[in-house]
Amino acid sequence: MRLLLIGFGTVGQGLAELLIEKRDALVRDYGLNARVVGIADMLKGSIVDPRGLPLDRVLASLAADGDLRHLSGARFEGGALDMIQTVDADAMLEATYTDIKTGQPATGHVRAALERGMHVVTTNKGPVALHYHELRRLAAAHGVRFLFEGAVMSGTPVLNLVRTTLAGSSIHEIQGILNGTTNYILTQMEAGLDYGAALAQAQALGYAEAVPDADVLGWDALAKVTILANVAFGADLRPADSPCLCITEITPAKIDEARARGQRYKLIGRVWREGEAVKAAVAPQSLDLSHPLAGVSGATNALTISTDTLGDMTIIGPGAGRRATGFSMLIDLIHRGGRP
Amino acid sequence: MRLLLIGFGTVGQGLAELLIEKRDALVRDYGLNARVVGIADMLKGSIVDPRGLPLDRVLASLAADGDLRHLSGARFEGGALDMIQTVDADAMLEATYTDIKTGQPATGHVRAALERGMHVVTTNKGPVALHYHELRRLAAAHGVRFLFEGAVMSGTPVLNLVRTTLAGSSIHEIQGILNGTTNYILTQMEAGLDYGAALAQAQALGYAEAVPDADVLGWDALAKVTILANVAFGADLRPADSPCLCITEITPAKIDEARARGQRYKLIGRVWREGEAVKAAVAPQSLDLSHPLAGVSGATNALTISTDTLGDMTIIGPGAGRRATGFSMLIDLIHRGGRP
Repeated sequence: MRLLLIGFGTVGQGLAELLIEKRDALVRDYGLNARVVGIADMLKGSIVDPRGLPLDRVLASLAADGDLRHLSGARFEGGALDMIQTVDADAMLEATYTDIKTGQPATGHVRAALERGMHVVTTNKGPVALHYHELRRLAAAHGVRFLFEGAVMSGTPVLNLVRTTLAGSSIHEIQGILNGTTNYILTQMEAGLDYGAALAQAQALGYAEAVPDADVLGWDALAKVTILANVAFGADLRPADSPCLCITEITPAKIDEARARGQRYKLIGRVWREGEAVKAAVAPQSLDLSHPLAGVSGATNALTISTDTLGDMTIIGPGAGRRATGFSMLIDLIHRGGRP
Repeated sequence: MRLLLIGFGTVGQGLAELLIEKRDALVRDYGLNARVVGIADMLKGSIVDPRGLPLDRVLASLAADGDLRHLSGARFEGGALDMIQTVDADAMLEATYTDIKTGQPATGHVRAALERGMHVVTTNKGPVALHYHELRRLAAAHGVRFLFEGAVMSGTPVLNLVRTTLAGSSIHEIQGILNGTTNYILTQMEAGLDYGAALAQAQALGYAEAVPDADVLGWDALAKVTILANVAFGADLRPADSPCLCITEITPAKIDEARARGQRYKLIGRVWREGEAVKAAVAPQSLDLSHPLAGVSGATNALTISTDTLGDMTIIGPGAGRRATGFSMLIDLIHRGGRP
């Protein structure tokens, strides 16, 4: 299986490390003989080798000077889209940065790869939140898969869980903590910090960006609930269709009032059926301490899935991270041959 | 797909209800056209119809007088084993009572069905805890599947999760709350009841049996950790190989001491690697209140799975129940064609 890695930041490198580490087990247990034939990154440059790039040397070269192009004999003159349109591969793995407003350039990469008959695996929320149904149809028309486990809760297998292990169930509500950065900030505010100090700490730890809007204004969580609405409920929503309230409304005074009631604030993303319609929303909510989501602290994510067969089921796991998000792409590669 | 239902108590009836309710969706979405051709129950009698038993009339007849044999024209003279050995079917669904010491009569049913080339789906811990590897090999030799999602955490998809959505991961520890009855008793003791009163309440609610040994002495949890050790870690353990301490050691005084330390007692089943060996144990443990398992209250079950790819992932859901356990058999039927 020949792979193109488009975007070679934390997630792409995490995947490369797993492919090196698990090479033998993947061939033995899943017949997955993965060969990375091209890597393109906007900042780090592009390299290609149809015989397979030596991933350990690629990572070493990157660690040495932050540039891929110094790997001898593999330099590719052109950007991501050129690579997708000219290099032959079986799957394109998209892990460029997420632009939740436009979904670009990731959506262009995904379309181009599907049109060339490559499977697409992505961790990028943009294309899935904005164009899921179009891209799914495009994949079907070309007989390939469009997979994106990592777009929601990183490698914690929530989408695969809904698709495979809850098959035959009808889901009537999904709600949870979908953004680790704001959950970390709220956890610190519970411990006594004000919003500014908690945000600064999240930034210092690398959880929050310098411009933290996508997290703290709720857009990241909104993109994820939109994906859940479209994938798990068959809706056709865009992020802008649903209300989104953010944690900047929560003050230390409100946190104290909630504590006095035996409650705790969480930023909750929610999708539910209302008659024939599917609704989605993101908003801070104060939950009873006995609620399964109230105890989820720090940068962890969690979802409670309510079904007609099991009642409530909750899954708690990492919502980000080099290795966890790299794994989300690996599990999609392993499952590429499975049921859509 | 012709099914035999062996054991027609709560679980078997829960499955029958789901098969009626989801008939059209199962055919449409999964190509699963299930026809129950035989039902055998030690107390309620046996019925057979090769054209398919009318499940709605079967359930109505049972509700009327508690006996299957009054359904006209379908009476089968013989027990479960006779039915498995003489009636043609594609899958045998085993949901008789669990005997954790001997695994019988369930193991005999499973062997007979596998030897006749039927897939086997069971919710019964006995055969899996005692004979997993033998039965798996027997299934492979006859080209059929041996599936048992419901044996651990009922329909909460922990075994399917390990098998499919965590594929490619290496698991180094699994620990959790695997017995809802004892978790309910401990939750009531936290609220101020003594052990006897909490047990009486669990019995009144139908959570605990009149002879509650399998739950309160930890045998049920021990059978489940043994299954996890053998299935998820490839070990070859029997329940008697592992230590098992029980909740009868926990006094109100110990609960108060734990509370003063900011901790809470839970009955924890655990499987882990120790060098090349796989170890398993069941014991009460006092957990910090911030531990994900400390907040799991009442009859709910939960497992934390520690992997090399995701770190810790926790799944919380029902550990029993007519519909949830019935669903475990349905999901195994849907997945029968999947990867073992």
